[in-house]
Amino acid sequence: MTNKFKIINDPVHGFINIPHEILFDVIEHPYFQRLRRISQTGLLNLIFPGATHTRFHHALGAMHLMFTALETLKLKGVTISKEEEKAAMLAILLHDIGHGPFSHALENMLMDDWHHEKLSLLLMNKMNEEFSGELSMAIEMFQGKYERKFFNQLISSQLDVDRLDYLKRDSFYTGVVEGNVNTQRIISMMNVSEDELVIDAKGIYSIENFLTARMFMYWQVYYHKTSALAEYLLVKILARAKFLVSQGKELPASENLAYFLHKNQFEKATGEDIQRFTDLDDNDVIQAIKFWTKSDDVVLSYLCNCVIQRKFPKTLMSSKPFEKEFIEDKIARTNLKFGQDIGSELVDQISRNLLPYNAEHQPIYLLQKDGEKTKLDHSENQILSSFINQLNTKYILSFPREI
Amino acid sequence: MTNKFKIINDPVHGFINIPHEILFDVIEHPYFQRLRRISQTGLLNLIFPGATHTRFHHALGAMHLMFTALETLKLKGVTISKEEEKAAMLAILLHDIGHGPFSHALENMLMDDWHHEKLSLLLMNKMNEEFSGELSMAIEMFQGKYERKFFNQLISSQLDVDRLDYLKRDSFYTGVVEGNVNTQRIISMMNVSEDELVIDAKGIYSIENFLTARMFMYWQVYYHKTSALAEYLLVKILARAKFLVSQGKELPASENLAYFLHKNQFEKATGEDIQRFTDLDDNDVIQAIKFWTKSDDVVLSYLCNCVIQRKFPKTLMSSKPFEKEFIEDKIARTNLKFGQDIGSELVDQISRNLLPYNAEHQPIYLLQKDGEKTKLDHSENQILSSFINQLNTKYILSFPREI
Amino acid sequence: MTNKFKIINDPVHGFINIPHEILFDVIEHPYFQRLRRISQTGLLNLIFPGATHTRFHHALGAMHLMFTALETLKLKGVTISKEEEKAAMLAILLHDIGHGPFSHALENMLMDDWHHEKLSLLLMNKMNEEFSGELSMAIEMFQGKYERKFFNQLISSQLDVDRLDYLKRDSFYTGVVEGNVNTQRIISMMNVSEDELVIDAKGIYSIENFLTARMFMYWQVYYHKTSALAEYLLVKILARAKFLVSQGKELPASENLAYFLHKNQFEKATGEDIQRFTDLDDNDVIQAIKFWTKSDDVVLSYLCNCVIQRKFPKTLMSSKPFEKEFIEDKIARTNLKFGQDIGSELVDQISRNLLPYNAEHQPIYLLQKDGEKTKLDHSENQILSSFINQLNTKYILSFPREI
Amino acid sequence: MTNKFKIINDPVHGFINIPHEILFDVIEHPYFQRLRRISQTGLLNLIFPGATHTRFHHALGAMHLMFTALETLKLKGVTISKEEEKAAMLAILLHDIGHGPFSHALENMLMDDWHHEKLSLLLMNKMNEEFSGELSMAIEMFQGKYERKFFNQLISSQLDVDRLDYLKRDSFYTGVVEGNVNTQRIISMMNVSEDELVIDAKGIYSIENFLTARMFMYWQVYYHKTSALAEYLLVKILARAKFLVSQGKELPASENLAYFLHKNQFEKATGEDIQRFTDLDDNDVIQAIKFWTKSDDVVLSYLCNCVIQRKFPKTLMSSKPFEKEFIEDKIARTNLKFGQDIGSELVDQISRNLLPYNAEHQPIYLLQKDGEKTKLDHSENQILSSFINQLNTKYILSFPREI
Repeated sequence: MTNKFKIINDPVHGFINIPHEILFDVIEHPYFQRLRRISQTGLLNLIFPGATHTRFHHALGAMHLMFTALETLKLKGVTISKEEEKAAMLAILLHDIGHGPFSHALENMLMDDWHHEKLSLLLMNKMNEEFSGELSMAIEMFQGKYERKFFNQLISSQLDVDRLDYLKRDSFYTGVVEGNVNTQRIISMMNVSEDELVIDAKGIYSIENFLTARMFMYWQVYYHKTSALAEYLLVKILARAKFLVSQGKELPASENLAYFLHKNQFEKATGEDIQRFTDLDDNDVIQAIKFWTKSDDVVLSYLCNCVIQRKFPKTLMSSKPFEKEFIEDKIARTNLKFGQDIGSELVDQISRNLLPYNAEHQPIYLLQKDGEKTKLDHSENQILSSFINQLNTKYILSFPREI
Repeated sequence: MTNKFKIINDPVHGFINIPHEILFDVIEHPYFQRLRRISQTGLLNLIFPGATHTRFHHALGAMHLMFTALETLKLKGVTISKEEEKAAMLAILLHDIGHGPFSHALENMLMDDWHHEKLSLLLMNKMNEEFSGELSMAIEMFQGKYERKFFNQLISSQLDVDRLDYLKRDSFYTGVVEGNVNTQRIISMMNVSEDELVIDAKGIYSIENFLTARMFMYWQVYYHKTSALAEYLLVKILARAKFLVSQGKELPASENLAYFLHKNQFEKATGEDIQRFTDLDDNDVIQAIKFWTKSDDVVLSYLCNCVIQRKFPKTLMSSKPFEKEFIEDKIARTNLKFGQDIGSELVDQISRNLLPYNAEHQPIYLLQKDGEKTKLDHSENQILSSFINQLNTKYILSFPREI
Repeated sequence: MTNKFKIINDPVHGFINIPHEILFDVIEHPYFQRLRRISQTGLLNLIFPGATHTRFHHALGAMHLMFTALETLKLKGVTISKEEEKAAMLAILLHDIGHGPFSHALENMLMDDWHHEKLSLLLMNKMNEEFSGELSMAIEMFQGKYERKFFNQLISSQLDVDRLDYLKRDSFYTGVVEGNVNTQRIISMMNVSEDELVIDAKGIYSIENFLTARMFMYWQVYYHKTSALAEYLLVKILARAKFLVSQGKELPASENLAYFLHKNQFEKATGEDIQRFTDLDDNDVIQAIKFWTKSDDVVLSYLCNCVIQRKFPKTLMSSKPFEKEFIEDKIARTNLKFGQDIGSELVDQISRNLLPYNAEHQPIYLLQKDGEKTKLDHSENQILSSFINQLNTKYILSFPREI
Repeated sequence: MTNKFKIINDPVHGFINIPHEILFDVIEHPYFQRLRRISQTGLLNLIFPGATHTRFHHALGAMHLMFTALETLKLKGVTISKEEEKAAMLAILLHDIGHGPFSHALENMLMDDWHHEKLSLLLMNKMNEEFSGELSMAIEMFQGKYERKFFNQLISSQLDVDRLDYLKRDSFYTGVVEGNVNTQRIISMMNVSEDELVIDAKGIYSIENFLTARMFMYWQVYYHKTSALAEYLLVKILARAKFLVSQGKELPASENLAYFLHKNQFEKATGEDIQRFTDLDDNDVIQAIKFWTKSDDVVLSYLCNCVIQRKFPKTLMSSKPFEKEFIEDKIARTNLKFGQDIGSELVDQISRNLLPYNAEHQPIYLLQKDGEKTKLDHSENQILSSFINQLNTKYILSFPREI
């Protein structure tokens, strides 16, 4: 076991301890090591150059927060067995194992309708066989089938350790301090009532601060108009490549990426699908985009150069959809600029939605000193929660420059 | 100029301002954008998972520190013209422009004897043509030919803004806080005497702290035995690939990387050499290493799997060279393990040297209140400088596990 | 002038430079040195033990932010003369010079109706005489009489450097990170349009984040029910002492404090008033409270012991005023507990108001790229400003424990 | 238990949990609450204005680190009982309980030869009576009488949690980041071998970094020539006051301080001695110094004004003692300046010693993977420890200015 490390440096949380053998073994698995080559925030580093962190580090960070949360709950008198602790840590460690290159951006591009959570479950089950069933309880927790609900809520809810880690980590690496959530404080306010996750009432402002920090991260970072565009460019590039391939065009790509460009039926994931999918990472995609900058397909080469040279189209943002005439004018000008009818391929309107706090579905509960539970936005002390329950939508129009 | 940004987020320094038009233009140049895809610290992220930052960000950070240093000097009464300011910022922005994939690691692998500084100069001169001579003064400063020596000393000396940025940045991203140098403090202590860079005497402890922080970064991070090994693995992989190619073996690689695997004469850099070199980045190398994990050359596939699966050979570190017998025993066992005579390819002794402070060559001078200059290690107040003038060498032996 | 320092360490902003001679001289003045002995946040350290910082440090920090703001504006092309720079820095340095012991808490206790700003102006004028008129422009700016309004707005508005420093500083020292405003970012977004302070439109989220951070600081820190109580206890102690003195009772106190306990007429501030006031600081008050813990007046000794032993009365907080019957019950029980009719002295309802953002009076304006100015809460991009324009009031009831 | 808090904000460590009832009760004791009014670093805030933190907060911080250290050791398999944990936390919480006003500075001024540790023990024993013997094991640990030595070593050794907290805390509040030790890392490297505290071998650089950080804090902060002088001024003021009182002079002072100015025999601490000592704090001393600025004793008023107006004498620092003639010249000039023979009272040479690492007495041991223990400075990997074993002495001469 000489190669096993027990402490991992993390500039975000300080140090990450790995208290169980099985966690090591999972971290050393090729499926997990692959996450080292998958960026956490896609092309966001084109806008925030510090954001080069990986899904590997995020998974470790979330595992660390899970450990901290469970320790806190134990100090408050919640009984948690060694097995449950291990399972909860495994579940969060593996929650993103199904992510492919560039995480969310290409989620539906490679294997059609395969959402990353579905793939995560598939890969977990596969690993569970290799680990002789040691991941079974973790998988139950991940799926929400384990009877004590708070384990699943720590993995996936409006206040789970996944969100806590990625907001803090993305804030740290982008340098956008408005999103720096106080994970230590929030976790110290967690509690369990009737096997459900709740927040000690005195932690209300920490929760409201978390919700506003999340809003700021979305509008300043993830949904920043250029960020949204960069992500969309990736999708368009892959879509264009698949289209060209379907038209019989040859496009250079690594063998594994080529496989997904050519294949279209993924109702069931075959053994080969999984093997090739888990050999893919950001490098395959970037390498292909570099090749395609020289493609003779004007649309493809335009889009690829946008990314590689960081020469982005122009973007406008609005809280209302753009007028049809305005868009058509942009298309016409683009056609003119390129001397080809490709304006409709290069002028795009996309939208982004955010519901800062969902007060209806699985709301956050505050635990009063007397044991009563109150919905966050019904608390007498809330100062913001009741204002941020509405869906907020913004529209982004992008089109080639100088037209 | 719509796409030009003026403020760049930097989690290390806060914000980076770009105060001159020409700086924008240089940043937008493909040679510079390429640095986004070149990691600052090579494979260090295999040991410190946070260290995914790029040479692009480092160059911007160093430029920011140059700006801060010049502002400080101006406040102290040093006359610095607008032209000099621009030139100094350009020179530091471009100081690493010649780096290829994985920065230092592969420095001498691709174009033989071409040190990155020589390549930087070559590329700067090429860009200078494109920019109609606007980079001329920057190039003079970079080469140390500009008459006011402190500009070159800020770019390249024992206390330059390059070191200040990379130590602080690498400390930040690795999470090794022992290397977190106080750049603000050190810069505030900079001064100029007879056009040479000096340090205000009261800043002595900040300088000594900087020197010890550098020592810690070297031995804890850069020369950490696994870090040193990871870097060496990269070199070995490329060397093996070049060797196999020279033996007529076909190895998959991107077109540009293949070019350098096959070519061997680089006395002069041709136009094609430069074109292809500046199209290379970390992705070409990682993609090739992924391919080569499946090579039928046992040595190559072993080395490539070490990197991709993060399954490192075993390493030992010592302050003395390892005994010949000990090494030969490891070679014999390796031969046995693989059933082939490849032990001498897979068992390696490497060494790392550090001179914490060079008191002889271009020493650091302290400026007393009375205008006198004292060598750092001769100062009455020094507490460490005189102890850290000796070269320190460590030896690392690596060999396959379980032998 | 050997004793003059030029750089002051500040854990909040890093380092504070003192770029003008006159600033030194003002800092060395006894009126200013006195601020070293006046806590920035009164008795807040009883709740947040780290909050022991002084008004001295805040004044220096605000001066530093003023310098940074002016440098930024100059880089954006706003013309600011050396004289204006000096004056603005002096004005903010002296903006709190009129604070007496425990800053705001005792503001109206010592010299009746003398608000600290009125006293600040009085002391500034007095110092201006000593400094032969060198403070005249600073005083104009402080009073809002200087023609270029943005100087006064930087000193006193909804987004002045005073607020920026105290929020960041109080957040730092209390450890309540929810209030950690990004001063560097906010200042980088400041601009001037028609001699009025405005914010570059792209800085909108930084401003909204600042406004919510301020809300959190108020409700988590300044208006925390125990904090509000502690401040109120100070007021009650002084009021009780003045009352007892007016009844002819002897109370130990330093000579200067005794003077203010006995005197009641302050329509005009006499030379002696000023002399004695500027000799007072927190020590006089704490020393007196320590004496008075042993007073035979039950009310006074009870209140003083609350502070010195940190044995606080019980507090309840509500968004509605407490019922009269409820309060009277508490009074009756207190009378019973003490065996004296002092319940009405020891049971108190206080209230705290916060208007997170005043959209009516001197609103914040955003400067669009085309030069247009938009009110913050009218901006299409705002996500919070329009929700936080209402006055929020909370009520706190305090009464002796175990009744 | 309504007033009891369970989490205390600490900007240095984040949050401090109080996991045992008895810890609350001790914190609420007047002896401990008194530490809120005793500054951790005396008059250091005159040089580093941020350094206003108290011994109260340090004691809590050290307790927090003790908790963290014990948790770490438990994870490594060291058996520690609930009773031992409580006792160790109590011992470190109370380790400084015997400090009087201004901590170390006045240590030997008030009660002659009573070192603060002797007083701490006395007060602990007194509290132990009140707490019915619950502190007995803590007292054993404090005295080094408890059989498992590592508990005492965590309280008092070259690498105890006391040092870890005060270095980190003082670095934080002064803003001198060179002293920012990585407590989390150091504690994670702690281990126990044969009931002695040791450090895991791989933590060697963290320890060496800690030792150099300590050196920097001493020479940059604690032994900064003006800091050393400020501390010395306090001593001189009290000594002068005691002298004047012994000559029959009346000096205003609080009743408790007056008691100690008049009394001289402290072989045994009487009940009254203890009562009065534990009622003293920094306020008594500062208030007295403020009074004494107006004393007609020229020496006393000169010294007191130095402190209150922050008008320090001139200081020189040297690595050799100052020449006798030089000192006598300063005395003569002082006599001339004041027109009285008081030069010998106002011209002082003091010295400060630091042994960065004591390799002889209770050295630090590294624990190798094979269970072997190595002395820190004998380790093959050490890079600094063997250079910093020598006592370093500096001399400071102070004398009135403008002479």
